Amino acid sequence: MREFPHLMAAADTATLLIHCPDRPGLVHDVTGFIFAHRGNIIDLQQHIDPTLDAFFMRLEWSLENFTLEKEEIAPRLQPLARRHDMQLRLHFASQKKRVALFVTKESHCLYDLLARHESGDLPVEIPLIVGNHDTLRSAADRFGIPFYHFPITKENKQEQEAAQIELLKKERVDTVVLARYMQIISPAMIAAFPNQILNIHHSFLPAFVGAKPYHQAHARGVKIIGATSHYVTADLDEGPIVHQDVMRVSHEDSVQDLVRLGRDLEKNVLAKALWWHVRDQVLVYQNKTVVFE
Amino acid sequence: MREFPHLMAAADTATLLIHCPDRPGLVHDVTGFIFAHRGNIIDLQQHIDPTLDAFFMRLEWSLENFTLEKEEIAPRLQPLARRHDMQLRLHFASQKKRVALFVTKESHCLYDLLARHESGDLPVEIPLIVGNHDTLRSAADRFGIPFYHFPITKENKQEQEAAQIELLKKERVDTVVLARYMQIISPAMIAAFPNQILNIHHSFLPAFVGAKPYHQAHARGVKIIGATSHYVTADLDEGPIVHQDVMRVSHEDSVQDLVRLGRDLEKNVLAKALWWHVRDQVLVYQNKTVVFE
Amino acid sequence: MREFPHLMAAADTATLLIHCPDRPGLVHDVTGFIFAHRGNIIDLQQHIDPTLDAFFMRLEWSLENFTLEKEEIAPRLQPLARRHDMQLRLHFASQKKRVALFVTKESHCLYDLLARHESGDLPVEIPLIVGNHDTLRSAADRFGIPFYHFPITKENKQEQEAAQIELLKKERVDTVVLARYMQIISPAMIAAFPNQILNIHHSFLPAFVGAKPYHQAHARGVKIIGATSHYVTADLDEGPIVHQDVMRVSHEDSVQDLVRLGRDLEKNVLAKALWWHVRDQVLVYQNKTVVFE
Amino acid sequence: MREFPHLMAAADTATLLIHCPDRPGLVHDVTGFIFAHRGNIIDLQQHIDPTLDAFFMRLEWSLENFTLEKEEIAPRLQPLARRHDMQLRLHFASQKKRVALFVTKESHCLYDLLARHESGDLPVEIPLIVGNHDTLRSAADRFGIPFYHFPITKENKQEQEAAQIELLKKERVDTVVLARYMQIISPAMIAAFPNQILNIHHSFLPAFVGAKPYHQAHARGVKIIGATSHYVTADLDEGPIVHQDVMRVSHEDSVQDLVRLGRDLEKNVLAKALWWHVRDQVLVYQNKTVVFE
Repeated sequence: MREFPHLMAAADTATLLIHCPDRPGLVHDVTGFIFAHRGNIIDLQQHIDPTLDAFFMRLEWSLENFTLEKEEIAPRLQPLARRHDMQLRLHFASQKKRVALFVTKESHCLYDLLARHESGDLPVEIPLIVGNHDTLRSAADRFGIPFYHFPITKENKQEQEAAQIELLKKERVDTVVLARYMQIISPAMIAAFPNQILNIHHSFLPAFVGAKPYHQAHARGVKIIGATSHYVTADLDEGPIVHQDVMRVSHEDSVQDLVRLGRDLEKNVLAKALWWHVRDQVLVYQNKTVVFE
Repeated sequence: MREFPHLMAAADTATLLIHCPDRPGLVHDVTGFIFAHRGNIIDLQQHIDPTLDAFFMRLEWSLENFTLEKEEIAPRLQPLARRHDMQLRLHFASQKKRVALFVTKESHCLYDLLARHESGDLPVEIPLIVGNHDTLRSAADRFGIPFYHFPITKENKQEQEAAQIELLKKERVDTVVLARYMQIISPAMIAAFPNQILNIHHSFLPAFVGAKPYHQAHARGVKIIGATSHYVTADLDEGPIVHQDVMRVSHEDSVQDLVRLGRDLEKNVLAKALWWHVRDQVLVYQNKTVVFE
Repeated sequence: MREFPHLMAAADTATLLIHCPDRPGLVHDVTGFIFAHRGNIIDLQQHIDPTLDAFFMRLEWSLENFTLEKEEIAPRLQPLARRHDMQLRLHFASQKKRVALFVTKESHCLYDLLARHESGDLPVEIPLIVGNHDTLRSAADRFGIPFYHFPITKENKQEQEAAQIELLKKERVDTVVLARYMQIISPAMIAAFPNQILNIHHSFLPAFVGAKPYHQAHARGVKIIGATSHYVTADLDEGPIVHQDVMRVSHEDSVQDLVRLGRDLEKNVLAKALWWHVRDQVLVYQNKTVVFE
Repeated sequence: MREFPHLMAAADTATLLIHCPDRPGLVHDVTGFIFAHRGNIIDLQQHIDPTLDAFFMRLEWSLENFTLEKEEIAPRLQPLARRHDMQLRLHFASQKKRVALFVTKESHCLYDLLARHESGDLPVEIPLIVGNHDTLRSAADRFGIPFYHFPITKENKQEQEAAQIELLKKERVDTVVLARYMQIISPAMIAAFPNQILNIHHSFLPAFVGAKPYHQAHARGVKIIGATSHYVTADLDEGPIVHQDVMRVSHEDSVQDLVRLGRDLEKNVLAKALWWHVRDQVLVYQNKTVVFE
C-alpha cells in the first residue's frame, strides 16, 4: 500500500474497495475481471472477518495497458457486484480528492497539512479553508488558499452550516478535515459527507470523550496521552476510528505541558489518517474501519 | 534513578521519599542532614506541583561513611520532618521487599516475574504465591516457591481474605502483586496494605474499566490496546496509576489476538511498575503517583 | 495474518509462500487453483517490488472442503510453478514446526519462550534444548524438555557442531533458535538449516555489530537501544532482518542498566520473530525479508 | 523540567548547569547559595556518573524575591565554583536564545520550526534564515524572517562561511540549527559555536552515517528507520547525541516511502532537541549529553 513513483508516473492507477458476504472464489472472480482487461495488479489486500462472515478487499491496478476506458469500468463491474452482493468504491489516482480544512484558532494541524501539501507529500487539492473564527486567515493567505469566515452562534448555526454545505458543494469538496475545529457538526453536514469528515480528538478514545481531554487526563494522572482521528458521526467522539497514537507523559507535566506535547500527536495522527483516507485505504463497516496499510 | 552495581556492592544505601508543602530551603535543609553525617548523595530528584504547592523529593545516599546507624536515622529525621510538616518514608537497599504474588489461571505474568526474580533482575524476596485456583501450583513448585490455594466463593470470601491477610502478615509480606488475579480485593485487605497492592489491568485506563476489556476494545474498533498497572483502592480500576503502555493493533486482530498480544504488554507493564515500587521510586499523592524514574 | 480459532478448530489450513518474476494474472492464476478445488481463502497478501520486478505472495486457505489430499497439493502445483517460474513453499497448520533452542548462560529468552510454549501461545514443538554451558539445564528440566550439553572449545568446535547437526536431524528439527547463544555458527550448520536459524542480536542492527553492543551503545551515548532478530548467514550479524524494536534510554543508564533493560527487548523481539517464522509469514529474498504481518 | 506558566508569568527564573568532580556536599552547597539569597527552587536534577566520578546538576529557581541582581549572580558564584572545580553555565528564562536556521531545499523542518515559533511553542527569537540554495526564500518571506542566500561552491566555501559567521555574530545568534542543511560545516564555524550547532541526521546513528541513509537503510532491509539530532563536531555524524527516535517500516516501503515517512521523524526529533537546548536542559560532557528532561 505504498508509493511506486516510477509506476505512477508511467500511468494512472485504479483502486477498488470492496466489501460483501464472504464466500469462496471472490478474489479469483475480481482478479479475473482485471486480468481479462489486461490490468496489472500493483497491490491487493483482503481481509475476512469470520465473526461477521464479511469479506473486505482493496485492489489497485495499473491502467497502462488496461483495455477499458475509465468511465466504462464501474458499469462493467456491476454484474460482478450483483453476483456477490458487493459494495464497491472505485477511484483513480489521477483524480485528487478535494479537501476542505475547518479550523478555529489553533494553527498546528493547519500549518502541518499546508506544509505537507506544498511539498507534495499530501496528494490532494485544498480549494478552501473554513474558520469559525477569523484568527487563521493570515495562515491561509500565506499559502494562497481562500479563507472563509463563518462566525457561529447558537442562533445562526443552522443557516451558517447550510451555507457551508453549499460552499463545499460548489467547490466540489469531497473530504472535510476538522483540523481542531471547535464546533459540533450537525446532522445535515454529516449526511452530506458520510464517512468523509475526518476529525482529530485530543485523547486516546474512548478515554476522555468530550471537552478538555487534557484536563481530564491530568486529573486522572495517566502516564500516556493520545490523539484519535475518526470519522464524524451523529454520536460525538463515537465515530469509526481511523488512527490513534500516544506518547508517554509524567507527573512533571502540567496541563499546559500536555496541551503543548499533545499538539505533535494531534498533527501527526490527523496527517496519517488523512493520508490513508485520500489514498482510499480506509473502508468503514459497522462503525469500525478496515485500514489497508 | 538507576543501578550502580559497584557502589551497591561497596555499601548499603538509604532512600528517603518526602512530600510536604513547598517552601524555600527544603532541599538545602534535607541535604544538610545528609552532609552533616557524611553521607554521599547518589541520586536526588525533586518535583514541585505548583497548583498544589506541594514538594516531592526522592533522595538516595550511600551509607558507606555515614556516621549514623540505620536505626538512628528515622528518629533523627523527626525534627526536620516536624519543621516542614513532611511525610517521610525511609528504606534501605539491603532490606529487600517481601512480595506475595496473587494469581488465578493465566501464567504469563507469574512466569515473567519468577524468571526475573531467579536471574537477579528483580531485587525482592517472594515468600509465597496465592491462587484462588490451583492451576498454577506446578509453576510455583518449579521455582520452589510455596503455593497457597484459597478457593473463593461468595460465601467464604470474607473469611478466606482474612486468612490471606493473616498469612501475609505471618510471612512479613509488604507488597502484594495481583498478577492477573481475577478477584476483587476487599476493603480489609486494601486497608492492611495501603498503596502496597499493585494490580495489572488489561486496558489503557480509564478506557475499558471492568470486565473483558479486550472485548470492549474490539467492539469499539480501537487501533491501540494497552495495559495499566495501578495501586488498588476501594474504587475498582480507579487507583493511582504507576505505569501504562500500549501497542498498535488493527482490524485484522480478533479478540483472541488482542488477548494474546496484550499478554506481552501486561507482563512488561507490571514488571516495570513493580521494579519502580520495590526500589521506592513511587510516591502516592491524592490518587496520583510521582514516579522518580 | 491472524488467528481465527474457531476456523482452525474446524479444519486444517494450508499456507503457500510464493515468489517469482512479476507479470499480470498471477493472483488470478493461483486463486484459480484454490477455487477449482473448493478451498476458501482465509488470508491473502501479495507484494510487488517494482525495482526488482518481483512478485511475493502468501496465501492461506481452509482445507475443510478442499478436494485434494494434502500430499497431492504440492505435485499438483508444479505446472503452475513452472509456468510462472515460481519458488513455492507449502505448509500445513497442523504440522507444528519442531524448534530447537540454543542457549548459553542467560535465561531470559529461554524462559520467555518456554512460558509461551506451555501456555499455548507459541504453536511449536520443542524437542530439545542445546547449551554450550550446562548452566540452564535446570531451567530445561523444570519444563520437562531434554537438555544437551555441548561444551565447545577451539579444538572440538567442528566435531561438536557435527554432533549437534546429527542430533537435530535425528530429532527432525526444522528451526533453530539462538536464544542468546554465544557461539558463532559455522557454515556447515548454516547450510543444513538455510534461513531456518533465528538469532537475536542485542542492538538495532546495523549499529553495533559484534561483541558487547551495550558497551558500544553506552560509549557512543545513544538515546535508544534496540534488539534485532535475523536469520543467520555466513556474514556475522549481516543476515536478513526479521524484526527489530527499540526503547529509550538516557544518560542515567549505566552499561549494567542497558543490559538489564535490553533483556525485555531481546525476548520480545525474538518471540515475535519466531511467531512470524513458525506461522510461515516470512519469506527471504536477496538477504531481506518480506514479513506478511 | 516543565513549564509552569503562572510562575513564569510572575517572575523571571535563572537556570544553572553545573558539572564538576563528584564529592559529598555539592547539592547542599549550591542550594545554600540559592537559599541564602531567598531564591525558591523550581526544579533540581542531579546526576552522578560513578565511572567518571563526575557530578552534573541543573537547577532552576525563581528570581521573584531573589536578593541578588541578575548581573551579580555569576560573579558571586565564583568562590563556589572554584571551591569545587565547577564548570558553570547560567541563563535567564527572559533572555530568549537567538537561533539561526540553516536550510537547503527541503522545507519540512523549516516549516515545522516556524509554525512552532509563531504559535509560541518555541521560546526563541529567529533573526534570520540562511540557505545555500534560494529555494526556501518564499517560506521565510511568508513568516516575515530575513533570508540570506549563500551559494556555496568548492572555491568559495571558506569565504562564504566566514561571511556567515560574521552575519551570525552581527545578529547576536547563539544557536545554529541545521534544518536539513546539506553542507558540511567547517572547523571555523564549529569553533565559533561550540556545542551550539544542532543538526538533524536522517538515521538512528551510529547506523548509516554519511550520505543517503534512507538508501542505505533500504538496502540493508531494516525494519525501523530513525532520526538523530546531535551537536556538530569536527567528526561528521559523530557529535554528542541529544535526541533520537524511530518508526517501524516494512518490506512494502520503497526508498521514496522511507524518505517521506522519515520527514515526520526528522522534524519531531529536531524540534524536541531544540526545545531541550533552548531551555538549557542539555549539558555536553566527553562527547555525550546529559539531558535533564
